[in-house]
Amino acid sequence: VRVVLLSGGSGKRLWPLSNDSRSKQFLKVLKKSENELESMIQRVKRQLENVNLINSTVVTTSLNQVDMVKSQLGLDIPVIAEPSRRDTFAAIALASSYLYSVEKVSKDEVITVLPVDPFVEDSFFNKVKELENLFSNTSTDLGLIGIKPTYPSSKYGYIVPSSEDNNVVSVESFKEKPKEQEAELLIQKNSLWNGGVFAFKLGYLLDILTNYNLPLNYNQLLSDFEKIPKNSFDYEVVERARNIKALSYKGSWKDLGTWNTLTEEMSTSVIGKARLSEDSVNTHIVNELDVPITAIGVKDIVVAASPDGILVTDKAKSPRLKEYIPTSEQPMYIERLSGEYRIIDSNSDSSNKTAKLSLYQGYKLEDFNEDNSVKNYVVLSGEVQFIEGQVNSFVRRGESYLISVRGHYSITAISDTELIEISLTTGNKEKPLLKIPSLT
Amino acid sequence: VRVVLLSGGSGKRLWPLSNDSRSKQFLKVLKKSENELESMIQRVKRQLENVNLINSTVVTTSLNQVDMVKSQLGLDIPVIAEPSRRDTFAAIALASSYLYSVEKVSKDEVITVLPVDPFVEDSFFNKVKELENLFSNTSTDLGLIGIKPTYPSSKYGYIVPSSEDNNVVSVESFKEKPKEQEAELLIQKNSLWNGGVFAFKLGYLLDILTNYNLPLNYNQLLSDFEKIPKNSFDYEVVERARNIKALSYKGSWKDLGTWNTLTEEMSTSVIGKARLSEDSVNTHIVNELDVPITAIGVKDIVVAASPDGILVTDKAKSPRLKEYIPTSEQPMYIERLSGEYRIIDSNSDSSNKTAKLSLYQGYKLEDFNEDNSVKNYVVLSGEVQFIEGQVNSFVRRGESYLISVRGHYSITAISDTELIEISLTTGNKEKPLLKIPSLT
Repeated sequence: VRVVLLSGGSGKRLWPLSNDSRSKQFLKVLKKSENELESMIQRVKRQLENVNLINSTVVTTSLNQVDMVKSQLGLDIPVIAEPSRRDTFAAIALASSYLYSVEKVSKDEVITVLPVDPFVEDSFFNKVKELENLFSNTSTDLGLIGIKPTYPSSKYGYIVPSSEDNNVVSVESFKEKPKEQEAELLIQKNSLWNGGVFAFKLGYLLDILTNYNLPLNYNQLLSDFEKIPKNSFDYEVVERARNIKALSYKGSWKDLGTWNTLTEEMSTSVIGKARLSEDSVNTHIVNELDVPITAIGVKDIVVAASPDGILVTDKAKSPRLKEYIPTSEQPMYIERLSGEYRIIDSNSDSSNKTAKLSLYQGYKLEDFNEDNSVKNYVVLSGEVQFIEGQVNSFVRRGESYLISVRGHYSITAISDTELIEISLTTGNKEKPLLKIPSLT
Repeated sequence: VRVVLLSGGSGKRLWPLSNDSRSKQFLKVLKKSENELESMIQRVKRQLENVNLINSTVVTTSLNQVDMVKSQLGLDIPVIAEPSRRDTFAAIALASSYLYSVEKVSKDEVITVLPVDPFVEDSFFNKVKELENLFSNTSTDLGLIGIKPTYPSSKYGYIVPSSEDNNVVSVESFKEKPKEQEAELLIQKNSLWNGGVFAFKLGYLLDILTNYNLPLNYNQLLSDFEKIPKNSFDYEVVERARNIKALSYKGSWKDLGTWNTLTEEMSTSVIGKARLSEDSVNTHIVNELDVPITAIGVKDIVVAASPDGILVTDKAKSPRLKEYIPTSEQPMYIERLSGEYRIIDSNSDSSNKTAKLSLYQGYKLEDFNEDNSVKNYVVLSGEVQFIEGQVNSFVRRGESYLISVRGHYSITAISDTELIEISLTTGNKEKPLLKIPSLT
């Protein structure tokens, strides 16, 4: 069996901690052990390790989150970069072609696709492992995991069974987000919530690609990525499949996609520099700023702070967050495998901008300086090498380096380094607030 | 009549907006006009202007707030700097000696001392003006303003009258912070809250100084400041005075010393970069950070943010703030007449520190660079002149300047200027987090 972990999403539902460069699955707020925190994706990795599936796992994610995935999961797990956002069918198709043409996986091998978001018990992953068995003696097209409903939710999709045999459910149909009354009827018929897990034989999916005249070779499919139907796997595959089986899972299954659900699973009520009065009730603080937070006498509140913003929300109201996120704010910080980039000061037209950079040993930052731009770098710790045209300069703690002429330049970290970058631009030629340096 | 305005206090009761360098009276959160905000001290100045007393006013404040007073009130009002905190008697004594020996005020002139904190209606200042009349035909030692109580408060001091004649109350005794029951009895006897306003003939106070063998000359008293009894004016003078009269004031009189009382008088529910959902109730946000604040679905909350901290408090609980202020945090920013100093990044041991400075045209910043310290300055706007020993350098926008040897140096603003200062120290010799540059 091979596992494809879908690490998608650019969700702002956990603003200000999640932003376009850091989805919710990367937030380190869950309890790993008494003293350690982990992110959702790290938790899933740990759970895959527990059932010995981690060495069979590949991760698909958008191009701009590849670095973040590697930074959190390490370099041993292959990461497949989706060239653009094209929904889950395209992501799974790309991963399948990778497994087939690069990793030479057999067409008979079972592929299990997992979303990264649900917060589940370890036993869920035993079910994931059991999915393979559905394909041994049957003509199963698709295997799913159905979650025993705990209430008639109108937010989920339902798997409607035709029969159940030894915990294996034969799927009759699906029902997306029914009204509560209808959901109650569905539950009476032993319907299950659809867990978003898909298992299939590799050949099954490759046949679909072939029907679309799409190549099975990974590099060719990468080039043809825009030709893949922009559709969810549910609509493109699940709804058209004939023989669908589901394993039933009874246990905790949560979407930690809003502040009220996420904080239920937080290890402590306070993460970061913060103080909560002892008379505060059901309140959580997550602070990624250096500025300390104090909360006094509050109830059912989440306070979350990052360089992007400070949120104070009633927990029950937090799902309405999207309406209130400041518009057109670009992220004030970026995390990369190679380091971090954080704007610590900028004026309103961004013609002056001061940023703090971390660059880890051996990594290189490449940038281009425009005619109308001047950059001053001061090394706070470590040592870097600046290369600007033919000029090659080593710069140590306390020293500074000026980039004032037009052209490419690079900064290589000789050791782990922190720098302050002060950028000034003149003239009308507007530079973007956050020019992301390409890191190699 | 001469007015002495006492601008004291280092209160942290409005943390994080007030700190050791900025007391609550300097917070610009009150409504001046439809589109303008003013601070408490600016409001008092405006009210003194309305009754034509502003040209007779001097302000006393602690040495480290002189700049802030001048910055908010302008340069026309004399500011008397208390060399150290020595309570109100010492402050009033120093101001009296200034009026006598520097401004040559007659011993028969009436001096009226006003606290800066109470939030009052303009009619209060008519009473202040009337205080002078108490001294025309009587043997009055002291004149006070008594506030008609609106409820039996146990937080205030009470003036107990012996008789009242034409709105002039003869004072029999005082009662500090009575229990509520006792307060009710006092109110039945027409007692008044003590407004903290003191009027006396200059000679009356000078006699007290003479009895202590203290000099009447301002410069001599400044030198002998530590010899002045460290006592409140209430204990030192009021409780010993024989013939005390009070004018009765009926109207609004509030101490805006806590977040719940202050926000009652705020002009808008939001000041600074912030957004409040329309379903939030009785909630105020004051944001001095560049990071935007969003509050959703909250009730009876104050959110206040500055580089020193972020407070989220239930309004009714805000008086308990003192217990929860992060200890030993030094201010992250300082406002001066000459400009601003704001730490935008620092590491935990403060061996690396990046600050943004504003320096207004013509002002000069003087500093000393230690052996183990390196400072990089980058000019973001304007032009400055660095003087380091015999070296004299003009530095413009985009240019940088390095201070790397031990010694005095200065920065003079040729025009209004913004600079980034990056300080690095090495070795064990700890530098204070916030070395306040002396500004001239």
